[in-house]
Amino acid sequence: VTVAARWSIGERPNGGYLAALVTRALGAAAGPDHPDPLTVSVHYLRSPVPGPAEVHLEPLRAGRTVTTVARRLVQDGRPCLHLVAGFGDLAAAEGPSWVRLPPPAMLPPGDCAPADPRLADGVPMSFLDRVELRFDPSAPPSTGAGTGEVTAWARLAGGGPAGPLALMVLADALPPSVVTLGLPGWVPTLELTVHVRARPDQGEPGWLLVRATTRAMVDAHVVEDAEVWDERGTLVAQSRQLARVLTRPAP
Amino acid sequence: VTVAARWSIGERPNGGYLAALVTRALGAAAGPDHPDPLTVSVHYLRSPVPGPAEVHLEPLRAGRTVTTVARRLVQDGRPCLHLVAGFGDLAAAEGPSWVRLPPPAMLPPGDCAPADPRLADGVPMSFLDRVELRFDPSAPPSTGAGTGEVTAWARLAGGGPAGPLALMVLADALPPSVVTLGLPGWVPTLELTVHVRARPDQGEPGWLLVRATTRAMVDAHVVEDAEVWDERGTLVAQSRQLARVLTRPAP
Repeated sequence: VTVAARWSIGERPNGGYLAALVTRALGAAAGPDHPDPLTVSVHYLRSPVPGPAEVHLEPLRAGRTVTTVARRLVQDGRPCLHLVAGFGDLAAAEGPSWVRLPPPAMLPPGDCAPADPRLADGVPMSFLDRVELRFDPSAPPSTGAGTGEVTAWARLAGGGPAGPLALMVLADALPPSVVTLGLPGWVPTLELTVHVRARPDQGEPGWLLVRATTRAMVDAHVVEDAEVWDERGTLVAQSRQLARVLTRPAP
Repeated sequence: VTVAARWSIGERPNGGYLAALVTRALGAAAGPDHPDPLTVSVHYLRSPVPGPAEVHLEPLRAGRTVTTVARRLVQDGRPCLHLVAGFGDLAAAEGPSWVRLPPPAMLPPGDCAPADPRLADGVPMSFLDRVELRFDPSAPPSTGAGTGEVTAWARLAGGGPAGPLALMVLADALPPSVVTLGLPGWVPTLELTVHVRARPDQGEPGWLLVRATTRAMVDAHVVEDAEVWDERGTLVAQSRQLARVLTRPAP
């Protein structure tokens, strides 16, 4: 595979992009019966640089409803991330549903404003050429509001329907929610888990509502949860990451 | 390693027990500088039976602050679970803290009642000989209260201070929170991630407060979050699992 230079925060490729890249490698699905990544856990070992890399595959189990694989991104002989993904078929799942995670109140995308490049603290962000973010202009995430929470509309540049791989990118696309706590530095991810709950049902504009929340930062280690809803208000993904809050900007 | 028969729900060894078993295998730590499992992700492939099994190790990275390893539990040549763990030193972490996850109001352990064996629906539960659970007698989890939430005091049988490995067991020790939704069947875990946030600071009784919450069950697939606090009310662990709600009891 090739690690692209155009999904980066500073010089570092975005973690959600890397997770989607490796999930897609060797075929976006685990066979025709298991097209969807249901649950993906990623441990980040070292940041790759843009350029060629290898994906090493270890099949773990091909079951009736879930096929699980481990994949490793390797560059110059050194592992950069280790990913385990369970693939299944979201359309084939059956059984009871009960959801108490309603989308937060938010202005429509047309009344929201693009990402404020000041968030990046002077760091070049090619990532924001690939992902469009729209914030409530009265509550931009740079205000240090002390909430631990950031909400935005998000889509891949140009719009269009989003699949599960786009969800993995968009669930990790917002500014770190600790910016609301007055911590604008680099927040590298140690571990990220994404659960895809449903295929997004949406039209051409392709906006998804994403909320990222910090509830517990302990000794600069933060667990941040994110939820993603489609245009109809259906919960389509949940993610959680452990990250370390650094005081310096991304390199 | 030996998979014990005495941590089972029905015939199936408990998932948190298996995660702790494999995390501890080959040494409970990743060297003297990284004694604590900070973040552990487990994908469950098939249930092992009590008896001998092997743990296969793949070192991933020995870093300055985190050492990451992948481990696989193999029985009769077949992988049963794949675990990736990042080890570090909780005592050495430094930086800002901000926690908005207070422990829920709960009667003291002495005023609470043991687990109601009816929860197990006739299924033998050796697990409840190893783990003690105490519930608010006015709000037992079997009532189908429709809350999606179960709270209990929990400790390893006999009490005593709990370390990070015990946290991995106790974070997955409560009855599935979907019992409150009137779903008493077997809820096998597909994926479990545990983040250990602090070493518990507590005395001999060793009770930890555990809350498990379902916010989104979609087509019988449930994401359940759990938080664990020590006796002083300090958040010591957070976990999240993806599980499938079945209508039949555990085998």
